[in-house]
Amino acid sequence: MIVNDPEVHAELAALYPLYETALVENDVEILTKMFWASEFAMRFGATENLYGIEEIEAFRKARPAVGLMRKVVRLDIVTFGKDYGSVTLEFERETPAKLVRGRQSQVWVRLPEGWRIVAAHVSLLP
Amino acid sequence: MIVNDPEVHAELAALYPLYETALVENDVEILTKMFWASEFAMRFGATENLYGIEEIEAFRKARPAVGLMRKVVRLDIVTFGKDYGSVTLEFERETPAKLVRGRQSQVWVRLPEGWRIVAAHVSLLP
Repeated sequence: MIVNDPEVHAELAALYPLYETALVENDVEILTKMFWASEFAMRFGATENLYGIEEIEAFRKARPAVGLMRKVVRLDIVTFGKDYGSVTLEFERETPAKLVRGRQSQVWVRLPEGWRIVAAHVSLLP
Repeated sequence: MIVNDPEVHAELAALYPLYETALVENDVEILTKMFWASEFAMRFGATENLYGIEEIEAFRKARPAVGLMRKVVRLDIVTFGKDYGSVTLEFERETPAKLVRGRQSQVWVRLPEGWRIVAAHVSLLP
């Protein structure tokens, strides 16, 4: 079990920014495609718990495209072997009322169809 | 890549309850031991961001042992291959003021020293 194999780490370091861009641009097609197309995919969002790719996609499609901009203030990628990675980050978002601070964690697995997010968790700090 | 290999799934299904018990009993030694003893281990808690096993252990030791009881209302375990698992759950906690609902996600990896939590994220729903 090689931790942070440079080639594997570089793959996720190249992939993750595509997710971040798709998120702030609310590119639902790319966001959905980056998740595992499975009933076992899951996502705990800031205010909702989603199970299975259908619930995840429906949430993305229904979400307003405004207010998604955020600044990533820390990003960590840790890989295990050739096929597993944990991507975690802290973000800040300016809102009219205040500065919101949050965290995001994702589990990435290299499946036959490519790297996919199999589980994600987003939350705001109180 | 076998998803939810019955033997691997059963291993994590047997291990996870030990964490839950240690958590509500605030057994700091067991809780710390179940995390990866690495600078790359991380834990986003309900109100704090912890990086590395030293920060995680210091947080556990400093936390009051009261108010940790919770009821797990949904638990999902998904395994990938022989060495990787995602454990996610929803919990409820009774407090004097209200019923608190939260979520926990953990990334488990089978390392040479055994199964360890390499990343965790706990948050409360608003």
